[in-house]
Amino acid sequence: MHDDKPTLGVGMVGYAFMGRVHSQAWRTVGAFFDLPVKPTLAVLCGRSREAVTATAEQFGWAAVETDWKELINRDDVQIVDICTPGDSHAEIAIAALEAGKHVLCEKPLANTVGEAEAMAAAARAAAAKGVRSMVAFNYRRVPAVALARRLVADGKIGEIRHVRAQYLQDWIVDPEFPLVWRLQKDKAGSGALGDIGAHIIDAVAFITGQRLAGVSAITETFIKERPLAEASSGLAASGGRERGPVTVDDAALFIGRLTGGGLASFEATRFASGRKNALRIEINGSLGSLYFDFESMNELWFHDHTLPAEESGFRRIIATEPGHPYMDAWWPPGHGLGYEHTFTHEVRDFLTAIAEGTDPTPSFDDGLWVQRVLAAVEKSAADDSRYVPVEDR
Amino acid sequence: MHDDKPTLGVGMVGYAFMGRVHSQAWRTVGAFFDLPVKPTLAVLCGRSREAVTATAEQFGWAAVETDWKELINRDDVQIVDICTPGDSHAEIAIAALEAGKHVLCEKPLANTVGEAEAMAAAARAAAAKGVRSMVAFNYRRVPAVALARRLVADGKIGEIRHVRAQYLQDWIVDPEFPLVWRLQKDKAGSGALGDIGAHIIDAVAFITGQRLAGVSAITETFIKERPLAEASSGLAASGGRERGPVTVDDAALFIGRLTGGGLASFEATRFASGRKNALRIEINGSLGSLYFDFESMNELWFHDHTLPAEESGFRRIIATEPGHPYMDAWWPPGHGLGYEHTFTHEVRDFLTAIAEGTDPTPSFDDGLWVQRVLAAVEKSAADDSRYVPVEDR
Amino acid sequence: MHDDKPTLGVGMVGYAFMGRVHSQAWRTVGAFFDLPVKPTLAVLCGRSREAVTATAEQFGWAAVETDWKELINRDDVQIVDICTPGDSHAEIAIAALEAGKHVLCEKPLANTVGEAEAMAAAARAAAAKGVRSMVAFNYRRVPAVALARRLVADGKIGEIRHVRAQYLQDWIVDPEFPLVWRLQKDKAGSGALGDIGAHIIDAVAFITGQRLAGVSAITETFIKERPLAEASSGLAASGGRERGPVTVDDAALFIGRLTGGGLASFEATRFASGRKNALRIEINGSLGSLYFDFESMNELWFHDHTLPAEESGFRRIIATEPGHPYMDAWWPPGHGLGYEHTFTHEVRDFLTAIAEGTDPTPSFDDGLWVQRVLAAVEKSAADDSRYVPVEDR
Amino acid sequence: MHDDKPTLGVGMVGYAFMGRVHSQAWRTVGAFFDLPVKPTLAVLCGRSREAVTATAEQFGWAAVETDWKELINRDDVQIVDICTPGDSHAEIAIAALEAGKHVLCEKPLANTVGEAEAMAAAARAAAAKGVRSMVAFNYRRVPAVALARRLVADGKIGEIRHVRAQYLQDWIVDPEFPLVWRLQKDKAGSGALGDIGAHIIDAVAFITGQRLAGVSAITETFIKERPLAEASSGLAASGGRERGPVTVDDAALFIGRLTGGGLASFEATRFASGRKNALRIEINGSLGSLYFDFESMNELWFHDHTLPAEESGFRRIIATEPGHPYMDAWWPPGHGLGYEHTFTHEVRDFLTAIAEGTDPTPSFDDGLWVQRVLAAVEKSAADDSRYVPVEDR
Repeated sequence: MHDDKPTLGVGMVGYAFMGRVHSQAWRTVGAFFDLPVKPTLAVLCGRSREAVTATAEQFGWAAVETDWKELINRDDVQIVDICTPGDSHAEIAIAALEAGKHVLCEKPLANTVGEAEAMAAAARAAAAKGVRSMVAFNYRRVPAVALARRLVADGKIGEIRHVRAQYLQDWIVDPEFPLVWRLQKDKAGSGALGDIGAHIIDAVAFITGQRLAGVSAITETFIKERPLAEASSGLAASGGRERGPVTVDDAALFIGRLTGGGLASFEATRFASGRKNALRIEINGSLGSLYFDFESMNELWFHDHTLPAEESGFRRIIATEPGHPYMDAWWPPGHGLGYEHTFTHEVRDFLTAIAEGTDPTPSFDDGLWVQRVLAAVEKSAADDSRYVPVEDR
Repeated sequence: MHDDKPTLGVGMVGYAFMGRVHSQAWRTVGAFFDLPVKPTLAVLCGRSREAVTATAEQFGWAAVETDWKELINRDDVQIVDICTPGDSHAEIAIAALEAGKHVLCEKPLANTVGEAEAMAAAARAAAAKGVRSMVAFNYRRVPAVALARRLVADGKIGEIRHVRAQYLQDWIVDPEFPLVWRLQKDKAGSGALGDIGAHIIDAVAFITGQRLAGVSAITETFIKERPLAEASSGLAASGGRERGPVTVDDAALFIGRLTGGGLASFEATRFASGRKNALRIEINGSLGSLYFDFESMNELWFHDHTLPAEESGFRRIIATEPGHPYMDAWWPPGHGLGYEHTFTHEVRDFLTAIAEGTDPTPSFDDGLWVQRVLAAVEKSAADDSRYVPVEDR
Repeated sequence: MHDDKPTLGVGMVGYAFMGRVHSQAWRTVGAFFDLPVKPTLAVLCGRSREAVTATAEQFGWAAVETDWKELINRDDVQIVDICTPGDSHAEIAIAALEAGKHVLCEKPLANTVGEAEAMAAAARAAAAKGVRSMVAFNYRRVPAVALARRLVADGKIGEIRHVRAQYLQDWIVDPEFPLVWRLQKDKAGSGALGDIGAHIIDAVAFITGQRLAGVSAITETFIKERPLAEASSGLAASGGRERGPVTVDDAALFIGRLTGGGLASFEATRFASGRKNALRIEINGSLGSLYFDFESMNELWFHDHTLPAEESGFRRIIATEPGHPYMDAWWPPGHGLGYEHTFTHEVRDFLTAIAEGTDPTPSFDDGLWVQRVLAAVEKSAADDSRYVPVEDR
Repeated sequence: MHDDKPTLGVGMVGYAFMGRVHSQAWRTVGAFFDLPVKPTLAVLCGRSREAVTATAEQFGWAAVETDWKELINRDDVQIVDICTPGDSHAEIAIAALEAGKHVLCEKPLANTVGEAEAMAAAARAAAAKGVRSMVAFNYRRVPAVALARRLVADGKIGEIRHVRAQYLQDWIVDPEFPLVWRLQKDKAGSGALGDIGAHIIDAVAFITGQRLAGVSAITETFIKERPLAEASSGLAASGGRERGPVTVDDAALFIGRLTGGGLASFEATRFASGRKNALRIEINGSLGSLYFDFESMNELWFHDHTLPAEESGFRRIIATEPGHPYMDAWWPPGHGLGYEHTFTHEVRDFLTAIAEGTDPTPSFDDGLWVQRVLAAVEKSAADDSRYVPVEDR
């Protein structure tokens, strides 16, 4: 056997939830998409050699490192994939870009606007030298979401009047759920806002082609203290169990205006009992409407308002036809995709951009803009919900 | 035949959409509910004698009047039912109450807080003399909505964390839709906000047993001018067609806090293409969740978060069982009700309260409170979305 | 007040479930539809004077009778409405028709083909003299069902390949549910087959404009004995409680061919736990598909197969637009109807046909044909499921 | 890196649709499931060296063969995975088993009962020597389907009264769709019946733990002739285009009885416009009901009939919780799986059985039984739909 394609070695930092799903994407993309380059799973990096070695064996990474600084300097690494918590994104990404490595970085881009600005600056400097960077807002790559964008871009929705975006989860409803890193501001930057709110901010911008002009917000932390994560995996939950403060939001609500004149509402929460991963977006325009819910990720609902009222209604498009975004690579109609495939599509687009010498999206500038929205939300929430304009770049 | 029940003569002011559906309710209630009193369709009042006579014949009203002042003084009228636009509510209701008539008044209670305060004061004074009053928030009387309230009251939802309330319609998406009275501030008080937003404000208070503590709001009028209503039914739509300004909101979004500590978002719009009468409420609590959409009015979705995660999920309760609110009066399970029956239930509850000598709900004070929320929304929207506390009574 | 319309006195036999819903239809139809005649609730007939009087008072019937033979001879009765169990349909209907009264008869038309043939013959003879008759297959008058027929008739579905019809209920899942008349062959003719299977047989013929050419069937009685109805409402369920045999089917399944070459499957059961009144019909054609479920009676799902696959999918038409069948009489879009309104529409169509001197449908011949299908199902089930052609008239 | 697990070399015959999805399963299983053995992608076999080499490179197969007889004799092959059309299953499987190779065989097991009997006999003989075999009914491995089986086995559904199984596709609605191998009896054995009907026959047996005792059937070929597949991919569709006869069924409907006394209906069709891959199963029992539709493959609907009627209804269980079958290997709740993962689970179970020395299911005997049902359906359809008992083993 032989294969003349040039290879690109991937070095990935982080091996937990995101690390696993990114690993699977790198392993899978070449089997389904005819790419101009071939990624290799070169190096996996994590602080615990034992743990990172186990994951590397599972997914077929060729080598491991325990220090990301070693990883970014390896000759067999051309792409650095950052799957760590947000507090380390800036340092790793900037160093990798300066070392001439293409960078795929998990969202949110950073924990602060300042960090994001530095990263975006580094990305712009690197791009000038042909080094590419992208933020991993994977939900853009759900075929139904990409189809939504196409329908908007094709003018099927008309002038956008309303956006209703929610990202609802319920994994911390129980007050005894422990104080994991995602509930700590120093590690995660913010709570539901940055973790899942960032996804809907980006997805709405992606689908509508418009940005939020400003926001008015309320945030809340319902459970102020939780068992320490270590403690919770130890002995039973009585008496002396140690607790620590939750330093991020449990939920964030905000309303705002789109640059095109429409109104938008957003909600990100981990307290929506029974909603598991309900990333939902509804868009109402002068010519039509769209509705998506990730819990039924292979479906896009489309209302064509130009049809006679007697024959119109929201139709359930099963986004698995060959003509749908990404779908010619997969199975016959009706044989749906899963969560992991959003990442397959993401690395497919990233690799294609690298090979073609174009800048992939969402760029670090796009990620910076999301960060600005997150900051505007926090500022409004802290200032009596007063409307805060979002600086556009 | 004979029937020993005391009768109560109804005098109704207004005979358009609300007038028709109220007429049907008064005609129907006694056939399905075993009431202590018997309503009679005594007098229908409207300014055009010809038109009001036609409607009276259709629905079986015994007499007509063209001046509401005559109506409230008639001896055969014990109940005054006000189905006119909001600008006349206060005058009619206060006069009727002072004349010792029980009053059922369409929502929103009034066009201003001032009017509503006067009405509530009149209602309180009348109540002291045994004269009853109620605001016609009919959606409280959807069996599924009343069931939702029962589940909350029974503790099945636990501590409420989130409320998501929307009332979505699409009847004025077309910019050529004419400038009807509902789009004129002097007649309607406000637009989507007061017409349909008032319903979800009341419904959320009803279901949760909590009130909005304050709001942050955005409102918008997308189409600033429309063809005059008279003109639109006249000649073709070109050249000289006269237009007038839309003086109310087309849409209102607001977020806020509940008195119990939960967060809530509200949206009322007439620009949600494809959504016809989507009054939707989702509630997430520490023990469970609820979801209702009036477009499927016989269903309530309930998630019991106390069940093992492996067996739990939102269940579709078809609210047509004999044990569901109001349902023992109707048909076997699965034989659903329609929009009109919310009014049948409304007059059933009103008549029962009159007969039993209790104060029906929602009271004029409840209606006044809704008016205060509407005013707070407008104030916040006019003040950069700043959070405005809602005075509670 | 005055009203120049000619009146037609209705005499109704039976005052239980069907009697109540028919009463409400007769009371309501004139308030919403502009009819050329005006029905009056003249006489209600039942064997227990006390009970029938109570129902008559509730619904506003002017007089009562305890013998249907008296009723059909009264001068104030021009229409006889038969709401009794099937064993009395033939005798009452034939006598009424011979007395020159228009007849509306509940379904199934009769308990045997022989009875139905006699009734159809009587109807034909009466029609020659201008006396009208109709079978009360009310589900034809669901707006969404009538819309389905229209879409088929307009060619939107193309050549019909498949019909999937189910009528699922669950009210006798409990083996202790008593032996009511619907479970006794001498009263009801058959079980689920005739009671609810008849509805889907008629509805499929109505929507498709085609008939079943033949059937292959299986029927079953899961619970062979049940507590006597009297006993069950008496003392507790132990020891001496008397039981009797269930003499009808609990469920009937059949498959067959349509006259146009398509295939069809039918299922009628009262043992579908959790399905309350799920009358469901799906139709797949060469150009499109339709789906209806009475549990969401205001919706029709339509798939337009002529659209590009990428944009197509089942769309949820909320059948409440002014252009939808019957809907210009009611409320604004999205303000749905309920079960009772299928009967309002039924008597509207019946009265219109009488006034216009045309034969209403479904005719007694249509009812006879349904009876032939029921008989073919029973014959096939008794003969090893062998295919039994259905005689078409 | 090192890994002490014993390896098992897989040799796969066929590289089209099924070949691709099986390849991905073999590549993926070890990354997510902690298996006692490690599969290697040893050899891929296909008649065209060029084509099979391309697929092998895509998916990482180490070697290729063009003759399956070579493949089964290779020392680096311990498992033979048969992904060819049904006409070659028997010859390959029997030879492989006799050569001491474990066999995974695509469904339906064979094209005739005779072939299937020979295969089952070979499998039994091989099993005595520790050689394992399994039929690839992948839909058993949908987590929601496996959960359905568990709920039945746990007694949550009670005595099963009804099964409603449908497998609806629409890919040959267009009469110009070409005469591919799946429409030719010599290659495919039968049409919709064996291709997709076999899946629902197996899935119902799996979920209920019961078998079909007998069936009454109708089959139909709507389009009798189609363009030859070669022609269709050649020049334009006019004049001289050659056509050939469709020699299999387009659709099959059958009803029957379960060994436990319940009734069942089945439908398999490729003419259900708008239904893409709608494998649907509803089960109604004395204590509860279940509903599954593969078009929403991450959901199982469960009705608990033991709850009070007022609180019960079909609940949507999102089958992505850690406790759901197979799900502890994957992502957090709500992050759904896709079609391909049913195969990951399939090879996981097959490998585990091999490693543990147990016989995997569904066995070739299970596949033989499905074949008997297919034969009974065809026999009944050819004999006036007469009920045909299914021999049980």
